[in-house]
Amino acid sequence: MKTALYAGSFDPITNGHLDLISRAARLTDKLIVCVTQNQSKNALFTVEERLDMLKSVTSNYKNVEVDSFSGLLANYVAKNNINAVVRGLRASMDFEYEIQMAQMNARLYDKMETIFLMTHPNNSFVSSSIVKEVFKLDGNISGLVPDEVLKYMKNKFNK
Amino acid sequence: MKTALYAGSFDPITNGHLDLISRAARLTDKLIVCVTQNQSKNALFTVEERLDMLKSVTSNYKNVEVDSFSGLLANYVAKNNINAVVRGLRASMDFEYEIQMAQMNARLYDKMETIFLMTHPNNSFVSSSIVKEVFKLDGNISGLVPDEVLKYMKNKFNK
Amino acid sequence: MKTALYAGSFDPITNGHLDLISRAARLTDKLIVCVTQNQSKNALFTVEERLDMLKSVTSNYKNVEVDSFSGLLANYVAKNNINAVVRGLRASMDFEYEIQMAQMNARLYDKMETIFLMTHPNNSFVSSSIVKEVFKLDGNISGLVPDEVLKYMKNKFNK
Amino acid sequence: MKTALYAGSFDPITNGHLDLISRAARLTDKLIVCVTQNQSKNALFTVEERLDMLKSVTSNYKNVEVDSFSGLLANYVAKNNINAVVRGLRASMDFEYEIQMAQMNARLYDKMETIFLMTHPNNSFVSSSIVKEVFKLDGNISGLVPDEVLKYMKNKFNK
Amino acid sequence: MKTALYAGSFDPITNGHLDLISRAARLTDKLIVCVTQNQSKNALFTVEERLDMLKSVTSNYKNVEVDSFSGLLANYVAKNNINAVVRGLRASMDFEYEIQMAQMNARLYDKMETIFLMTHPNNSFVSSSIVKEVFKLDGNISGLVPDEVLKYMKNKFNK
Amino acid sequence: MKTALYAGSFDPITNGHLDLISRAARLTDKLIVCVTQNQSKNALFTVEERLDMLKSVTSNYKNVEVDSFSGLLANYVAKNNINAVVRGLRASMDFEYEIQMAQMNARLYDKMETIFLMTHPNNSFVSSSIVKEVFKLDGNISGLVPDEVLKYMKNKFNK
Repeated sequence: MKTALYAGSFDPITNGHLDLISRAARLTDKLIVCVTQNQSKNALFTVEERLDMLKSVTSNYKNVEVDSFSGLLANYVAKNNINAVVRGLRASMDFEYEIQMAQMNARLYDKMETIFLMTHPNNSFVSSSIVKEVFKLDGNISGLVPDEVLKYMKNKFNK
Repeated sequence: MKTALYAGSFDPITNGHLDLISRAARLTDKLIVCVTQNQSKNALFTVEERLDMLKSVTSNYKNVEVDSFSGLLANYVAKNNINAVVRGLRASMDFEYEIQMAQMNARLYDKMETIFLMTHPNNSFVSSSIVKEVFKLDGNISGLVPDEVLKYMKNKFNK
Repeated sequence: MKTALYAGSFDPITNGHLDLISRAARLTDKLIVCVTQNQSKNALFTVEERLDMLKSVTSNYKNVEVDSFSGLLANYVAKNNINAVVRGLRASMDFEYEIQMAQMNARLYDKMETIFLMTHPNNSFVSSSIVKEVFKLDGNISGLVPDEVLKYMKNKFNK
Repeated sequence: MKTALYAGSFDPITNGHLDLISRAARLTDKLIVCVTQNQSKNALFTVEERLDMLKSVTSNYKNVEVDSFSGLLANYVAKNNINAVVRGLRASMDFEYEIQMAQMNARLYDKMETIFLMTHPNNSFVSSSIVKEVFKLDGNISGLVPDEVLKYMKNKFNK
Repeated sequence: MKTALYAGSFDPITNGHLDLISRAARLTDKLIVCVTQNQSKNALFTVEERLDMLKSVTSNYKNVEVDSFSGLLANYVAKNNINAVVRGLRASMDFEYEIQMAQMNARLYDKMETIFLMTHPNNSFVSSSIVKEVFKLDGNISGLVPDEVLKYMKNKFNK
Repeated sequence: MKTALYAGSFDPITNGHLDLISRAARLTDKLIVCVTQNQSKNALFTVEERLDMLKSVTSNYKNVEVDSFSGLLANYVAKNNINAVVRGLRASMDFEYEIQMAQMNARLYDKMETIFLMTHPNNSFVSSSIVKEVFKLDGNISGLVPDEVLKYMKNKFNK
């Protein structure tokens, strides 16, 4: 696989995301990690902050690039000669939704291929939203997000 | 089956809905297709626009009638001597929700019967909300909605 | 719906099956209930015994006929001008299998339509195989199968 | 089991909740039923009203106490020497979410144990949100909530 | 909870089973771990061998007893004044089957209560059958079963 | 991705398998398609026949090699420097089983990576076993298996 894309909100990036990035990077010549700019979603971090966090935590991976886009994933994939989109799978509920999105994307761009990696069982309960909720309630999230992200979180919430 | 009901938001009607209407119409003497007026849901099209679209795309079906209602589905079913409510099933996630609704409806009106048809595999990824999201991002939705609906969509978004 | 088919092993017929028959009979002009002759499955009752049981428990339904067939369901449906095949759904696991079968059948006979009814929550745990297993271990199955079937079961196992 | 916790929004308490309380109370020396104060959720009843309803409908259970908390469940469990958190399971969709929460809680407090009881099939379609929706549309919810709760509902909506 | 039952084939006992036993033992005054004698299942170990293995690996738990039974679980529960049956849950597929069994058991014995514990994510892929299959193909199963069980396995297969 | 493995019984190979092979071949430098020799499964075709069929239907793919193995998948992967194992996903039921196998394989060989591709919706109902069952009952399977496989099937059953 020459070039793969891993796109998401990354609001913020978790250790589950990072595990997926490290594994996908091993399978590809180039992995582009993209922040999707979704206006309807109320994000905690700005796109710039999320790009900064992503660059910081992926700096050791030589074949990982960081980018962002708005609009259709299918358009970004077509324009950038991406061979496959990588998605993480946690549970059956994810799966149904992911299949729907993958079929829609294949419809919008006929060379679109989606490949799925399972999240590691240790990370299967970690998501950006649950991490934010726990942190707001003063729960301990170290080990669930990279250390750099923890600093951004403390800064954002003045903790 | 004398009279069946197919109710939904139809905001807008998709080719998945239309496939279900054509198949349900073959199984019944009369099929009523109903726009449900749900105030809490933020609709793109007015009830009148949705009724117009429905009438337009179902005009070839002699035994299909178009209507709308607010309030409980169970009340509409009881008042109109409907023998069965038709629902489309796409995936396991739909299924759990549909079972909950069907059991609640059977509780509210004891003669209520719900029958399920599978969506065609080609339409299993099509929903009103994904169609709207793709269209807003300038994606091509022809083939996912009837041509008449595409005109309504272009008009609504000035595209 | 003019004619519908409800096919199964009925080895033996349970109250879950009977509930489905009574509900499907209300929705159709004619309901054919068919014992499928499946050589690979090791049946407890002969096809003749199962036909006798079915006739006995459905004798009150004027529009229910009992029959049996071997070979492909799709062929039986095509030959007998059946408008829809009725299936009961109990849980997500059923659902995946049922979708696979319905799609295969639609492929084998293009006019094939499958409609699904939910089993009543009270019967959702009842199946022919669990009824047989419980009865073999001297468990009480009255209320899970029609009384006539209980007599057949006692006779078969000399209980 | 010395002490178990059953926590939820109970906005309002349903007969499904009450069935679970009665069953969990039989399995434990002490069962604490807790209203969780979740600011982000738009509740119909105040915490005080929900505590009143809970006290009223659980007054016959000698070993049931009623309480409320804000913040992390894991903190409440650790502070109050609770041996297990009790959760009701209705369907596969619940299950995925419940597993995610239970794993997160086990991470936040390493002595946390979550036990699951199945909801009774008759209550499997009952939830606080569907009860509120049906009541708003003038549907009959007697038998779905305790009689005391029905009075609170009528009062709240002036019906 | 005074007395709970954890029943299974335990052919052989795995670290997944053992994790569940240790957690259930903390929640109960007495935990009975039972080998079910199921003639139709082709077991690798005799009931006596499985009882020996269970006694060996649970010898440190003061409130755990080991037993075996044939016939209906519901009868064993009724005869031995058991307050709840404990089951481990791994995934949605388990869940559907477990719900069916729990409902049948509640039907066979009306005081039957089933409580579910989640398997630890690290053990979610471990089952007796997969352990046997891997061992037959010379795979390394240490860490998946207790050390005592590994000896029994090596002995049985002359490895 | 340098080298990927797609392993299965292929008894026989279907158009669903072939679609997956063509898509996986586009994503990898080399794709090895392997017949797994599983003694416990009662196969219709010998390993040699299945290898012949695979070679025939994949002859146009320059980067596809055909092989077979017995024993553990993890050993084959380790010995042949395979970067990822490719699996097709059809539905939630597949998914649970696939996750279990992928976790076991990751345990047996720590560099093991499993990637999943969705089956095309048109093939989601096609499996080797359903194809054999339909063919035995004289159903039409052309379009479900490659033409070469259809010849092998006719030969095997003297049709």
